[in-house]
Amino acid sequence: MIALDFESPEPLYQQIYRSIRDDIVTRNLPAGAKLIAIRRLADDLHVARNTVETAYLQLAAEGYVASRPGSGYIVEDLDFDSLGTPGSAAKRAKERIERAMQSQERFRDEPFNRHDKLAYDFTYGDRPVGSFPSQIWKSLTDEALFTANNKAACYGDGLGEPDLRRQIAQRVHVSRGVNCSAEQVVIQPGTQVALGNLLTLFDPARDAVAMEEPGYDGVSTVLRNRGFRRIPIPVRPLDGKKAGSQVFFDALEASGASLAFCTPSNQFPTGMTMPLSSRIRMLDWAKRTGAFIIEDDYCREFRYETRPIPSLQSLDENDRVIYMGTLSKVLSPALRMSYIVLPPELLERWRTVFANYYCPVPWLSQETLRLFMEKGHWDRYTRKTVTEYRKRRNALMAAIERELDGRVDVLGGQAGLHLLMRTRDERGQDELVEAAKTQGVRVYKTEKYWMGQPHSMEDYVLVGFSSIKTELIDEGIRRLARAWF
Amino acid sequence: MIALDFESPEPLYQQIYRSIRDDIVTRNLPAGAKLIAIRRLADDLHVARNTVETAYLQLAAEGYVASRPGSGYIVEDLDFDSLGTPGSAAKRAKERIERAMQSQERFRDEPFNRHDKLAYDFTYGDRPVGSFPSQIWKSLTDEALFTANNKAACYGDGLGEPDLRRQIAQRVHVSRGVNCSAEQVVIQPGTQVALGNLLTLFDPARDAVAMEEPGYDGVSTVLRNRGFRRIPIPVRPLDGKKAGSQVFFDALEASGASLAFCTPSNQFPTGMTMPLSSRIRMLDWAKRTGAFIIEDDYCREFRYETRPIPSLQSLDENDRVIYMGTLSKVLSPALRMSYIVLPPELLERWRTVFANYYCPVPWLSQETLRLFMEKGHWDRYTRKTVTEYRKRRNALMAAIERELDGRVDVLGGQAGLHLLMRTRDERGQDELVEAAKTQGVRVYKTEKYWMGQPHSMEDYVLVGFSSIKTELIDEGIRRLARAWF
Repeated sequence: MIALDFESPEPLYQQIYRSIRDDIVTRNLPAGAKLIAIRRLADDLHVARNTVETAYLQLAAEGYVASRPGSGYIVEDLDFDSLGTPGSAAKRAKERIERAMQSQERFRDEPFNRHDKLAYDFTYGDRPVGSFPSQIWKSLTDEALFTANNKAACYGDGLGEPDLRRQIAQRVHVSRGVNCSAEQVVIQPGTQVALGNLLTLFDPARDAVAMEEPGYDGVSTVLRNRGFRRIPIPVRPLDGKKAGSQVFFDALEASGASLAFCTPSNQFPTGMTMPLSSRIRMLDWAKRTGAFIIEDDYCREFRYETRPIPSLQSLDENDRVIYMGTLSKVLSPALRMSYIVLPPELLERWRTVFANYYCPVPWLSQETLRLFMEKGHWDRYTRKTVTEYRKRRNALMAAIERELDGRVDVLGGQAGLHLLMRTRDERGQDELVEAAKTQGVRVYKTEKYWMGQPHSMEDYVLVGFSSIKTELIDEGIRRLARAWF
Repeated sequence: MIALDFESPEPLYQQIYRSIRDDIVTRNLPAGAKLIAIRRLADDLHVARNTVETAYLQLAAEGYVASRPGSGYIVEDLDFDSLGTPGSAAKRAKERIERAMQSQERFRDEPFNRHDKLAYDFTYGDRPVGSFPSQIWKSLTDEALFTANNKAACYGDGLGEPDLRRQIAQRVHVSRGVNCSAEQVVIQPGTQVALGNLLTLFDPARDAVAMEEPGYDGVSTVLRNRGFRRIPIPVRPLDGKKAGSQVFFDALEASGASLAFCTPSNQFPTGMTMPLSSRIRMLDWAKRTGAFIIEDDYCREFRYETRPIPSLQSLDENDRVIYMGTLSKVLSPALRMSYIVLPPELLERWRTVFANYYCPVPWLSQETLRLFMEKGHWDRYTRKTVTEYRKRRNALMAAIERELDGRVDVLGGQAGLHLLMRTRDERGQDELVEAAKTQGVRVYKTEKYWMGQPHSMEDYVLVGFSSIKTELIDEGIRRLARAWF
């Protein structure tokens, strides 16, 4: 018995569909029952046959009934009991959505990876607010949208847009001495995804990864999550008996690793530069053992007292170095754009393993960046960024000398976007971070950069200068002095 | 002996640096040698002390010399021989770059994942050229750039921008019946990356994955690359003795899988809709075994003869379904934007495992898409897209009926963006694809959709209608008829 409401905005076929569906769900129409013939139901309800047919087709498409040639539509045997009470999914959905609405404000300010705002935040990695060249990016985006609209319709090159890869190959050669052709450049949405893909070319059951200790936690987490054995290679001497580099190379030789992750230009987080002798030894190690070295050149040309030092890759005669770069520190971390330069052997493996993968970086970002590079904005902007960072870094070094001289040990600061600092007393990082907070200053703990137990450096805190306004640096360090001493 | 050229554009400090460096590399200055004191060299060369000091600092920064307190700068012991002949890296770089230049044209047209252009290309997945709403996207990008410029400076929410996630949660609820809160929505750059991340929550040593057979090769490759055991679950009967769904569920029950990948709305590539009875059985299987089901709803509302069928997730009372959606088919595959709706248990795991990961989708794409949705463009554009696809699909069905009636078997076409077709004779897919080419028509092989050996369907070819112009469909099918019969 179907009751139709001819005044309702709900289409008639939909009312018929719903009525029959409800009868099936509540078993008023049992499994195996035959639906009334289309013609008869249409006559009974005074509607067009087509209306009933549409309802029946919908029921059949969703699987409530099956169409049997010669015998019409038969109700399917549906075990709704195994799902739970009918209608409860909708009820729960309503509850969830209401809950979400209530938690809207909480959700908006969700401090995932974030902290409460403090006035003097020596954070690391973020860029200064307002530094993004929005006006230029806007006009280049417009240009990209209208000159390359056809590319919006398809998937593009799996390794990244060829013209962008050519621009990057040229730039890393000039600025970092990287030796490569454009084919070797692969566009990726950030170092973590890039590393994850790279690890796909290796086997967690067989290949161990040597990782700087301390080192970038964002990378060591990827290694752990992908099931690779991580072998910590100490970058600072554990005791006074052996030279630091000897400890490092003893550990590297003993590691049996197939891959080594390192940051030669500016070791993260200690801020040390890998000396030439160690670079030569690392390349020799890779050549002898057949291992590959991942050079994360995240800091590129950010070197303040001398010219930038050429990349490790530029010394590599045996194609053992995988060079990684990112746009996060120069332009914007929110662009999610980075690149890998693969040695030929790995490029071959990559092409095989990822043959039917799509490039995960949007075409529009790639096109816009290509134009940004082609038109010279990239080079100008990089110079401007380095100048900005140098200003902040010099202000920070001067403030530390003025306010904290003789009372703290400082590591790093010749390059990169941060330095490490500790007081010359018994206080550890927790105490120093908490004390700073009382004066409205945020400095950061370093413990997460250790895979094993922190050793001789557990009392260091990280002080970044990539994002804090230059004019706040003096007062920030003054307050830090007040908080600590 | 350092010869300075005071007329050269090369800075003097750089000439000094280079001269000493070359002497060290060629061992004219042996390991352990002491550099001339800064003051004396400055006097000898008639340059400022500062000029010599800058050169020495650069040599020290790069590691050619070490500064020893009290004894000046000492040449390091550098084993250049282990690197290869000096200068060969630069030489090889030059060769590589020249080679790259020569291959520029080849590289530009590199047919990676691509084929030669044919006039009648029944490709699958790409969007029609010119379909991207560039004008709207441009103005929303501008708006996003100027209202949210501060977000360009930092890394953002690791799961995606909260406001965008709210928009998506609302839309998948309305259009697909998906029950979720905005917190459960995770933004990802495409199905392959999303699946890769999802797999990180599982253990390849313990968890097997049930995969539709035939199924989407882009997904089965990710499973293989990540080392997961894939268990093919046949979606079409292998023989006439058992019903198709019985074969499917027998295989599923026997699989012991922790995860099952499926495409219930429009099985790829067979175009079948998973009937309600099978949906209920699948959910019951997941509930009993504790497995999760990945529902790839790539085709969303693209259903042509009836209304869209609600998602599998909408029936799930036990939080066993992971819902995946993509923007590739509605808006643009080049945007690289997709999303996952995680059940609460997996959301917890995700937050733990990816605690220090960044969201790989650019902030600007996310902001622009949010505005696109908020301002109603998304809903309008989706309707327009479905209308477009329906037009193409109807043209294709009509052309097949007219030109090929009775001579081919057709599978699918009620939903999605393609159908499968075979001739009723002995010819296999290779022969059919090659014959089509001779008439300027491209149809596609289906063999890659099988993990095991193709069985009863090895003679089917894929005919897509997402990208070919409507006015070319008739002639394309006419030529296909000519090519095949």
